[in-house]
Amino acid sequence: MSLIVQKYGGTSVASLDHIRRVAMGIVNTKRKGNKVAVVVSAMSGETDRLLNMASQVMVSPPGREQDALVATGEQSCAALMAITLESLGHRSKSYLGLQLPLITDEVHTKARIVDLQTEILHDAINEGVIPVIAGFQGVSNNGNITTLGRGGSDTTAVALAASLKADCCEIYTDVDGVYTADPNICPKARHLKKISYQEMLELAGLGTKVLHARSVELAQKYQVPLVVKSSFGGERQTWIVNEEEVMENSVIKGVTLERNVSKISLIRVPDRPGIAYKILSPLAETSINVDMIIQNASIDGFADFTFTIPTTDLEKARVLVNKVAEEVGALEMLADNNIVKVSAVGIGIKTNPGVAARMFKSLSEENINIEMISTSEYRISCVIEEKYGELAVRAVHKAFGLDQTDPKHDGDNQNE
Amino acid sequence: MSLIVQKYGGTSVASLDHIRRVAMGIVNTKRKGNKVAVVVSAMSGETDRLLNMASQVMVSPPGREQDALVATGEQSCAALMAITLESLGHRSKSYLGLQLPLITDEVHTKARIVDLQTEILHDAINEGVIPVIAGFQGVSNNGNITTLGRGGSDTTAVALAASLKADCCEIYTDVDGVYTADPNICPKARHLKKISYQEMLELAGLGTKVLHARSVELAQKYQVPLVVKSSFGGERQTWIVNEEEVMENSVIKGVTLERNVSKISLIRVPDRPGIAYKILSPLAETSINVDMIIQNASIDGFADFTFTIPTTDLEKARVLVNKVAEEVGALEMLADNNIVKVSAVGIGIKTNPGVAARMFKSLSEENINIEMISTSEYRISCVIEEKYGELAVRAVHKAFGLDQTDPKHDGDNQNE
Repeated sequence: MSLIVQKYGGTSVASLDHIRRVAMGIVNTKRKGNKVAVVVSAMSGETDRLLNMASQVMVSPPGREQDALVATGEQSCAALMAITLESLGHRSKSYLGLQLPLITDEVHTKARIVDLQTEILHDAINEGVIPVIAGFQGVSNNGNITTLGRGGSDTTAVALAASLKADCCEIYTDVDGVYTADPNICPKARHLKKISYQEMLELAGLGTKVLHARSVELAQKYQVPLVVKSSFGGERQTWIVNEEEVMENSVIKGVTLERNVSKISLIRVPDRPGIAYKILSPLAETSINVDMIIQNASIDGFADFTFTIPTTDLEKARVLVNKVAEEVGALEMLADNNIVKVSAVGIGIKTNPGVAARMFKSLSEENINIEMISTSEYRISCVIEEKYGELAVRAVHKAFGLDQTDPKHDGDNQNE
Repeated sequence: MSLIVQKYGGTSVASLDHIRRVAMGIVNTKRKGNKVAVVVSAMSGETDRLLNMASQVMVSPPGREQDALVATGEQSCAALMAITLESLGHRSKSYLGLQLPLITDEVHTKARIVDLQTEILHDAINEGVIPVIAGFQGVSNNGNITTLGRGGSDTTAVALAASLKADCCEIYTDVDGVYTADPNICPKARHLKKISYQEMLELAGLGTKVLHARSVELAQKYQVPLVVKSSFGGERQTWIVNEEEVMENSVIKGVTLERNVSKISLIRVPDRPGIAYKILSPLAETSINVDMIIQNASIDGFADFTFTIPTTDLEKARVLVNKVAEEVGALEMLADNNIVKVSAVGIGIKTNPGVAARMFKSLSEENINIEMISTSEYRISCVIEEKYGELAVRAVHKAFGLDQTDPKHDGDNQNE
């Protein structure tokens, strides 16, 4: 008998009909002889509705109150799911983060889990009750309701699976798993049956929306096998497991396109020690995430300094950097949001020299100019002009042999 | 410096605009040098929306889950109120029943308060924070969310006022207090500035919707001065206080009309000991509230047995009583929902013989036939044909000198 934690996202519980369909899936899992614990997000649209009300009242509502408000979305969905399971003849109870408790730090709207008690869930499961836990929320040591920020319900599910020592954590969402590229951009993208935690982390960090990085990190730390499935049915799924469980038949596991990228350049900055710190520290203080950084070789005591940031932070950054530019005596500041980042991700990169070269070659064959480059053990990223983004993804995808021969055919068998 | 508990009902917080207006009132109270704690209901319509979703899923949802669902209504309203107070420049925090805690028994959907801790509210108030408490909800000793049933937020407010040793509890609603009769029925009804707990209890029990009986009972028990005000402004208000604080210039304080009344008669029941118990116990077991009971004098060993129940329970009762009728050998069962109950309420009744006679006389002068009568220390009630209901109220109102001479004039001064 397995113990399975199932997590259903907002689109999976978007209406009472959706909830009923999901509930029947839960009942099926139980009928097959498994024990089940369920984590739910808010019904899709509900969190936005609540946040919108708060922002109508106040531009930046206090985090404590915003959390108390938003947490009602998961609470009502959990209660409705429990009622639906009861209506299908199964005992069920809903639980808030506060009731377990799921203890977090006091950083409202993006709290981190510090402790999780699951005794009452164990008791419930052993009594034959299906517990339905409101995802995304917790309680601080001071008794305040907190929320876990983006991807919070995934994180709740993985933490519960770890604490309950569940056999696996199933994440139900509106896609049936992870692909070698976004099928909307690259029609020859293949579905992946298995991917390592580390590769998934890189993909999540690069904007792949299937799972949030925090939940993957937690799954890796506590060795929780994760599986991503579609809540709308179908047999396909992607397992996220340890590196050694993934057959490495391909160097690269996926190609991603990140659009939320802009770059800022400071031209002719007097090249003194501490200059990079001086330029970037105001951004760090404002929690603007600087990604790639390039400083070209110093000529006659001056250098050009370029870095990328999320486009959503561009206006804020422009103001800050303009001020610094004057202070350090730069000639001028240039900003460009007309760029994208194409990345290749895979555990094969660290052991295969020449992977980077192959990627650069595929781009040059399409006459695409590379403006910036960064690499890590599991990733190579190139910043290019925006208009070439989708073409670049297809070129790199093909160059690493990821294209499935027949786009209508599931390429899964090539990946095992 | 006074400590005031203010409670705002659903119509007072029906929209973000309403909440803002209410928040400005709270700020005013604080600016006058008072300490304030606020209790809110759910935004009007929200509780029904949630209950409707639950009932779409299941006819009788488990009480535990229904409570967890419905409690989100007050929770989100409390958070929005706290955010609004913050937007006006005042520190504010929202609290759930669970967080205080407000401990109740485990009777879901109509729990009763067994304990209430207010240390964190005291601390908040002393730090200059305006606490906003989600009304209507509590938590059982087992950690389950409970709700207090009808009038629950009023009860929360009074319990908090008692526990905080507040100077008074202000109930803000959509009317500006208690009247000698429903002004829609009786245009000459006068506004009352003061009424005793006991009179208010009788009026609440007779369907006056200003306050629920439980909150009045609690206020009397803990000697919390209650005042009912309109959240839409105006100077009028009604104080609910001890009997000795009410100047008794009138024997009768108010006249009410209850429409939710039906009667059931069993004709020619063999008159044996225990027959009343046999007839009424199935109703008690089904929580159907039997109000007035008449058993006429036994003739040749048979008696007629008549009682009233809420019309909303008539169909259920009919089935139960029909069964009993056969068992006890009654000749037939008659049901009548074509009746209403007119009552006169006042602390003067117990010390003024002849009050009942005056009421009966006023009805007979209008040719209204009295079908049933019941009396208590503070109340005389007559069941009459429905079509005479409003006429009867006006007649009794006039007979006891309650009519204000000029309907446009506030009769308050006559009542002090």
